[in-house]
Formats: sequence, structure tokens, C-alpha cells
Amino acid sequence: MAAFGRWKAQRLARQDCSRRGALDERVAGVVRLLNGRAPFCTTSSCSGRLVLAEGGAALSAGIPKRRCRWLLVAHEPCGCADVMAALENATGNVVFKFEPFVLHVLCQELQDAQLLHSVAIESGFKNSGITVGRGGKIMMAVRSAHCLEVPLTHMGKLMVSEEYIEFLVHVANQKMEENATRIDRFYKHLEAALEAAGGVSSSPSTDTGQVHAVYVRRRKRKTAREQDVLPSPEGHNEELEPGDDPEGSLDIFAGITL
Amino acid sequence: MAAFGRWKAQRLARQDCSRRGALDERVAGVVRLLNGRAPFCTTSSCSGRLVLAEGGAALSAGIPKRRCRWLLVAHEPCGCADVMAALENATGNVVFKFEPFVLHVLCQELQDAQLLHSVAIESGFKNSGITVGRGGKIMMAVRSAHCLEVPLTHMGKLMVSEEYIEFLVHVANQKMEENATRIDRFYKHLEAALEAAGGVSSSPSTDTGQVHAVYVRRRKRKTAREQDVLPSPEGHNEELEPGDDPEGSLDIFAGITL
Repeated sequence: MAAFGRWKAQRLARQDCSRRGALDERVAGVVRLLNGRAPFCTTSSCSGRLVLAEGGAALSAGIPKRRCRWLLVAHEPCGCADVMAALENATGNVVFKFEPFVLHVLCQELQDAQLLHSVAIESGFKNSGITVGRGGKIMMAVRSAHCLEVPLTHMGKLMVSEEYIEFLVHVANQKMEENATRIDRFYKHLEAALEAAGGVSSSPSTDTGQVHAVYVRRRKRKTAREQDVLPSPEGHNEELEPGDDPEGSLDIFAGITL
Repeated sequence: MAAFGRWKAQRLARQDCSRRGALDERVAGVVRLLNGRAPFCTTSSCSGRLVLAEGGAALSAGIPKRRCRWLLVAHEPCGCADVMAALENATGNVVFKFEPFVLHVLCQELQDAQLLHSVAIESGFKNSGITVGRGGKIMMAVRSAHCLEVPLTHMGKLMVSEEYIEFLVHVANQKMEENATRIDRFYKHLEAALEAAGGVSSSPSTDTGQVHAVYVRRRKRKTAREQDVLPSPEGHNEELEPGDDPEGSLDIFAGITL
């Protein structure tokens, strides 16, 4: 427990010098709420984005990840004109994607991850799940299946009309709005769950052992164990940038991967 | 441990009278491999599918799940003609989806879920994750981000050309083939991991306490605890049928949900 607190303090101290302010306000609120509680440390996040991603011009297997590039990334609703303009640069196979909110949180104990998992499921993030690494590191990933993935060009040739692009952008913007609603719901449910659980507030630099009665009851149900938590290889807790795709590969066509 | 074994035996006995043979051969192999080991019990699966799903004709929020229907479901590569024929029945908002392999496995202990999780990640199923229910039930979900979700019609009007449909079906079929390759990879990695771990073979009706040395070492690293495992509400371990969408909602457009 003490090890987790020290490690968290180091991470959050690094974070103060990094890209603060780069997070979408909604996500920043969630991140602050979690990092203000001792058992949680957020590691990476994406508020949700619209993406135009291009793979290689050759449709063959084994094209390395570095051959993909991003023609457009938007974290807010965008317009048809933005997409059409970006598509003018297309030379290969372009896919239009909507990717919803993603959040990774390191958790001190399994019951902390369970609390977060329940909140995520309740808020509509139904692909959320826990990972327990070999060293005992417990990660909760908030994920949703609420996406779009639409092939638009083949070897540089646009396969749909501008009317379809306009329709697609409209659908994607609606998903972006629904995504924002879900983040708000997640924040409210999380706040309520943390209140109900009592939990512990902490400044980033202090370690705390104080545990509310509810947490004590929950922990008594599980066997306490020391955790050896290694720093996450994912780096700072900031918006995932183009090219950062920790959760999946961008398979535009079979064989083309990020 | 004994409770898990008894519960598993009951589930597998039910399964023998259910839709055996309905599983895709690849998935059936994975299911057999897992159920042949005491710490695992598969609950639901889908080998991967192409789907044409239609939501309501009205684009409004809060359309209940029962308003969605499936115009086409294919577990093997399909042809453009199949999709065009199915689209003739469209009256609302239709989305073409490719959904990859999904598998849910109840695990006796956390380290069993961790083994399975490592195998899933190694095989390319990067959205896999563990759920630990309040009663202690441990579920590992094998999931991938390797999908397609393409709006095709708006209020019954087809928004793309037949040429695009042909192109889209070609892309989807390639994803289907890549999906099959990943399932095969998963099977091989799983087989190797189970061999390396020693593990325990069991008939569905017997409970076993014999544990291989490797498992003993792994369990010593974690604190053993009794598990109270409740029967899964998901029902039989069989192919997820149209309308079964345990993992996510089918948001054709914002506000339209299954």
C-alpha cells in the first residue's frame, strides 16, 4: 500500500510538468476526481475522437505500423468540409473512425478496480475490464463498443459520395455528443460511488493510511496483500496522441496494422 | 474451489442437451480445450460475424432495444449479392457491422483469468479484460477492437453505391479471415500455456483438487481464497444469436439502442 502511494506521488509530480491543460475539460474532471483518491492513479486517456487514418497504398500483409498516418484528428464535432479537405491528401486506404472515451486507471487493490468497473458498466462503457499483471499491477480500462469504422478510399480513390461523407459526419457527431453525455454520467456515478465508499482524499505528494469504515468492510472480505506496482510504461497521463493506440491495432485492411 | 467444480459440472451437463454442434469448429475447439480444464468454464461465444442491423425509421433518442432487427447475419465470408438482397428489406437506418471473436470464460481463481488474459493479448485480442463480480465470480472476456461499423441507409434510403457495398464486403471478408487466423493463434497459444502451466484435466462431472507444481508456485504468490461463484446469467455456452449483445449496445445512431 505504501509502495503504491509513493509510486503514485512520483507519477503525479511528473505530470505537473507535462502537458497539463491538454485534457478535455470533461476528462480532466474525471482524472482529478480519481487522482484525488489514494487508491487510484490515472495513466492515459482519450476523451473520444474522430479520426481519418490512412494505411499503405499496397494492399498486402505485414505492412508495418509506421506506414500508417493520420490525416485528421478531432476531439470535437467536425464538419464535412474538414473531412473532404483532409481526404484530398489521401493516396492509399483511408478509414474514418469514431473512437469513444478511453481511460486507464491503476488501482491499489482489486476492490478499488471493482468499484471503478461497476461505475464504468453502469455508465454505458460496457467493454471495460480489469487487467492484473504478473507483478500484481491492477489496471482498470474504461472502454466502450460505441464506435464507427468506415473504409472510405481504396488506393487513393474515394469510394463514397460527398453526400455520404456529410451523412457520416452527422452520425459521428451524434456519437461524439452521446460520448460526452456518457462521460458526464461516468463522472456523476463515480463521484457518488466514491462518496458512498468513503474513500480517502490525498494530495499527490502524501501517502495515507486512513481508511473509511466502508472500505475497511470491503477489504475484510478480501485478503489484503502487499502490492509491488511498477511504473506504467504508458507514460504521462495525457491525451493519447495520433499513433498512440495502446488498445488495438488499426486494421484498415487485413495485413495493414499500426 | 469445490463449489466452482460442482457448478461447472451442472452447466456442462445442461450444455450436452443444448445446441451442441452449433458452434463454429474453430471456436468449438477452444471451448473444448478450456472446459477440459478444471479452472475454466466457458459461458458464451461468437466466432465472429458480419451483420446488417436496422434501427427505427425515426431518428430520435430512446428507441427501445426491441425496435432493432437483423437483416443479415453471416459467420462466414459473404457476397455483395447477399447484402444487396438483405438491403431490399430496409425501411430505416441500417448499419453494416463486422464483429470479431468474443468469448466469455468463468475462471476459478484470478491467476487462471490472468493466464487466459495473457494468451488473449498475445493472440491479438487487445480489448480483453477481467471482471470480478461482487460475489467473487471471475470472468475473462476475450475481445478485439478489430471491427467495422458502417452506416448504410438513412430512413430506408441507401446512401452508398453497389460498388461501395462490393468494396465493403471485400474488406469485411478479409477481416473475417484475419479473425479466423487469430482464433487459430489463440488456440495454439492457449494449448501451449496450459501445457506449460500443467493444469488439470477433468471430466465435467468430477471435481478435482490435484494441482500441478507450476500452479502451486503461482498460487503461492497470491493469497488463496474461497470463491462463491454464482451461475452465470448468460445462459448456455453457445453462439450468441442475433439480438444477443451482452457486451455493448448497438448504437446505429445516437439514441437508438438495442
